[in-house]
Amino acid sequence: MGARSRLTRRGLLASSAAAAAGVLAAPAAAARAAAPVQVAEPVQVDGSAVEPFHGSHQAGVATTPQAHAAFLGLDLRSGVGREAVGRMMRLLSDDARRLTAGTPALADTEPELAVLPARLTVTFGFGPGLFAAAGLADSRPASVEPLPRFAIDKLESRWNGGDVLVQICSDDPLTVAHALRMIVKDARAFTRVRWIQRGFRRAAGVRKAGLTQRNVMGQLDGTANPVPGTPAFDRAVWAGGDAPAWLHGGTTLVLRRIRAELETWDAADRVAKEFTVGRRLDTGAPLTGAAEHDPPDFARLTAVGFPVISEYAHIRRAHSPDPAKGIFRRVYNYDDGLSAAGHADSGLIFASYQADVAAQFLPIQRRLAEADLLNEWTTPIGSAVFAIPPGCPPGGWIGQSLLE
Amino acid sequence: MGARSRLTRRGLLASSAAAAAGVLAAPAAAARAAAPVQVAEPVQVDGSAVEPFHGSHQAGVATTPQAHAAFLGLDLRSGVGREAVGRMMRLLSDDARRLTAGTPALADTEPELAVLPARLTVTFGFGPGLFAAAGLADSRPASVEPLPRFAIDKLESRWNGGDVLVQICSDDPLTVAHALRMIVKDARAFTRVRWIQRGFRRAAGVRKAGLTQRNVMGQLDGTANPVPGTPAFDRAVWAGGDAPAWLHGGTTLVLRRIRAELETWDAADRVAKEFTVGRRLDTGAPLTGAAEHDPPDFARLTAVGFPVISEYAHIRRAHSPDPAKGIFRRVYNYDDGLSAAGHADSGLIFASYQADVAAQFLPIQRRLAEADLLNEWTTPIGSAVFAIPPGCPPGGWIGQSLLE
Repeated sequence: MGARSRLTRRGLLASSAAAAAGVLAAPAAAARAAAPVQVAEPVQVDGSAVEPFHGSHQAGVATTPQAHAAFLGLDLRSGVGREAVGRMMRLLSDDARRLTAGTPALADTEPELAVLPARLTVTFGFGPGLFAAAGLADSRPASVEPLPRFAIDKLESRWNGGDVLVQICSDDPLTVAHALRMIVKDARAFTRVRWIQRGFRRAAGVRKAGLTQRNVMGQLDGTANPVPGTPAFDRAVWAGGDAPAWLHGGTTLVLRRIRAELETWDAADRVAKEFTVGRRLDTGAPLTGAAEHDPPDFARLTAVGFPVISEYAHIRRAHSPDPAKGIFRRVYNYDDGLSAAGHADSGLIFASYQADVAAQFLPIQRRLAEADLLNEWTTPIGSAVFAIPPGCPPGGWIGQSLLE
Repeated sequence: MGARSRLTRRGLLASSAAAAAGVLAAPAAAARAAAPVQVAEPVQVDGSAVEPFHGSHQAGVATTPQAHAAFLGLDLRSGVGREAVGRMMRLLSDDARRLTAGTPALADTEPELAVLPARLTVTFGFGPGLFAAAGLADSRPASVEPLPRFAIDKLESRWNGGDVLVQICSDDPLTVAHALRMIVKDARAFTRVRWIQRGFRRAAGVRKAGLTQRNVMGQLDGTANPVPGTPAFDRAVWAGGDAPAWLHGGTTLVLRRIRAELETWDAADRVAKEFTVGRRLDTGAPLTGAAEHDPPDFARLTAVGFPVISEYAHIRRAHSPDPAKGIFRRVYNYDDGLSAAGHADSGLIFASYQADVAAQFLPIQRRLAEADLLNEWTTPIGSAVFAIPPGCPPGGWIGQSLLE
């Protein structure tokens, strides 16, 4: 508690929330009654659906998030340098190309498990240690380095860092397990496993298309994301301009493992939860709006002069006025353990893509770390940063522009 | 190795497999050419789909297996007796009734996570310790007790036993996580968590309806199962006759955690794998047949006088000539860890339902433990047995026939 900002204390929250509750009750009810019914088509689920592997960008970033993900952090074995990393990336790129197409990897020992890709994507990233090991420190994007330490962090070394990232996503969990196994086996000669993080979202088809994902805390999560395929997304996500030439068409990934403090979150009442986030839990609408995608009105005051959306509400602290300075969140839930006392080990695998970590992610993260009411119920326990190389054409391989 | 039957040694397997390979090659090719194309309809995935909670049997046994499962083993706190267990089961039954209908539990702290049941089922079981704690030892079905120790077992206490089982299944992983959390919170006053096992099958819609599941070893798994809704299923699964009257309409569950030794399995060649199982890996057809559901011909010999399906093949050892002595397998894959060296912690959550453990499960298990070639690549590391009470009508609760 002591190390955290005083602004996040429950005492402040409780009194502010109580003050806000009275004045908000009437407009909120009106807003809810006026909220339009969201019409969305059912998602067609198809095990044979393929996401293209080749292209100017790697798949798995702009790709509509699949239901299941495995994030794999690898460390290079000692003595593995530029040439060996290049060989590994040729091999892993070939595995990814085949598996994502629904065909077995070259040395596939369970080829029957490769036939239903269910939109499988395999995305590779390079951590700070890879640039050092390959003698390519000059090519490392400046902000691909461990994040500065934040007061809210309680990082555990078992979830931090990594020289190589492999992100495996599919709408089918058996396909994820098989692709993970094939990739790990081919990476073993070059790397050791540092960590594995498995996550999930709503199953494909269970939710309606276009509806935002809920996290384990019950919040709609990702409403403010730029939309893939729009100029705002392209500006925010894909590296160009000042980035090293080899990274153009790539991006960066900040991967944070954020534990949800569900026991105390559950003890908070609904008014306090909505005040904390700045949105309604049911519709996801901002406290100043009626529907999920209504823009928050951060200037609006209550009758007694308080901001309707608190100065310390999550959506205000996370908001970037300049869309080009935004980030693209592609998050997964985790729910791994369960203590003898029945406490969940559950939270968010927070994956944020942006052209530049320092210019986009860090300002937001600093605002959140400084004073976000939600910090009371979320604890970052893992942190890693990777450069995500651009995609490759047929015959090419991921990382070629850096390593060859 | 030393403790295992000599019959399962790789040396024997290799030579037998080699002998079998030559004589089988020609007929197998012919059989494959003749195999009919299996026609199956796509599964419609719908998050609002509901499995009925009330009925003469509990849901989650005959229910078409959902994609995700959590098996929760609980131990009663000391001092919790018959009356308290009854209160707990009233509470948990009410939670299950509401959650499976897509409505929040009474004390639901994340009601937005309850709205997409995606065929959620919650199934309860009673372990040996519950009967003792409730002073109902006389009502315990005789074979609801720890299984005898088998030579193949390498049981770890963290996966064994339990006084209460809660099996939570849904086509959506977030729904499983939410239901698990609600159930655990309401059970905490009465129990402590002993273990949690999470598993998966192919995602709903990704596979075609009617096609058998594959396990992490690549095998079609469950081909010989009795079909829910048939007299053979009802006879094999639902307790009646000699079972205690309170259990009529219920069943028993043997839950075994079976680790797959994927490193050595992958080192075996295809001929050896198919010889071990007694089925083709691709189609699942028995080595004497052309299609998955062709009955195996255990009497057929090769031209040189060997049985086509080995005396030690898995499907021969697991086969029950009397269908009423069969078991119903409703299995899930698990893939939890990953060692630094890249070795998977993966296998099968083997869930077997049968009217009587001693009459049905044990004879099969003894044959398998004695000599099943597959034992070389599978290791039982957990074991638990539960009575599964019958279902309950509206207004009733699970366990009422025993506890009230």
